[in-house]
Amino acid sequence: MNLRQLAGLSAVVGVAALAATGVALGDSGGGDSSPIYGVKIPDGYRRWVLIAPAQEAEPLNELRAVVGNDLAIKAYQESTLPFPDGTVLVKLAWKHVQSPEFEPASIPGAATTVQVMVKDSQKYASTGGWGFGRFINGKAVDEAQHQTCFACHQARVKNHDFVFTRWAP
Amino acid sequence: MNLRQLAGLSAVVGVAALAATGVALGDSGGGDSSPIYGVKIPDGYRRWVLIAPAQEAEPLNELRAVVGNDLAIKAYQESTLPFPDGTVLVKLAWKHVQSPEFEPASIPGAATTVQVMVKDSQKYASTGGWGFGRFINGKAVDEAQHQTCFACHQARVKNHDFVFTRWAP
Repeated sequence: MNLRQLAGLSAVVGVAALAATGVALGDSGGGDSSPIYGVKIPDGYRRWVLIAPAQEAEPLNELRAVVGNDLAIKAYQESTLPFPDGTVLVKLAWKHVQSPEFEPASIPGAATTVQVMVKDSQKYASTGGWGFGRFINGKAVDEAQHQTCFACHQARVKNHDFVFTRWAP
Repeated sequence: MNLRQLAGLSAVVGVAALAATGVALGDSGGGDSSPIYGVKIPDGYRRWVLIAPAQEAEPLNELRAVVGNDLAIKAYQESTLPFPDGTVLVKLAWKHVQSPEFEPASIPGAATTVQVMVKDSQKYASTGGWGFGRFINGKAVDEAQHQTCFACHQARVKNHDFVFTRWAP
């Protein structure tokens, strides 16, 4: 199948369905929706309940916080696995800088990425039921980066429905 | 004034008013309310909006997250200083441990302390309008530790209404 045929197929079956087949279109990102998955940054996520903070070592050197929508929080509190359809998790990330006011502390600097996982066991059946989105300045990164999401989650946290983050007690 | 007289005075004027005079009763903590300030852990704080995460270096070696009630979040979003009466900030803290599933990441371990700041410009007039509470396993630590709260906040963040944490963008 060549690119022209792929484009025609895309027009017929829709990009989401095509993506679910694993066909790479080479989307360079930059839109409001992620390549492959069509995931968007959800409205209002900055006020969602905190699941846990985290720190990422060099070279990223970030502070992070994962928040979830109501379905996510309920699932965490009730230890429900797999997470139900409709679950949305958002990871906020910032550069990790020393506090100018309290030397032992380090705090968020500039925002870096926003990363989203959306559970839809039908739509994303080929990736554990999860759609992924990775955004910089509100715009999705390219398809090549999105190709890496599920492989890592699958290799490392299949036993927790492909989700790394646990509830911070 | 001896301890018996102090106890009588306390009965007359109330512990909060007594505390506001700076008289040390040597409260060893362990109650639901903090010594000096009478601050409690607020109901429902674990579902409050995240203001920012932080990391604290050795020897504490903690991951932290500060959350706030609706008044706090509104004040942050509108850059309102000083914070209005009724503002409540809660800092959650956990031991900082390496993720067993993703080596570059470190994540929350056991919970350590919960620390609370309550704004009441009349009740806490002598400490910048803030009451402080520091809790371990839900019980307040002793008075000696609470004596140190305001001095540090006053010395370092007087220009931000005695509050260290800034909104993480």
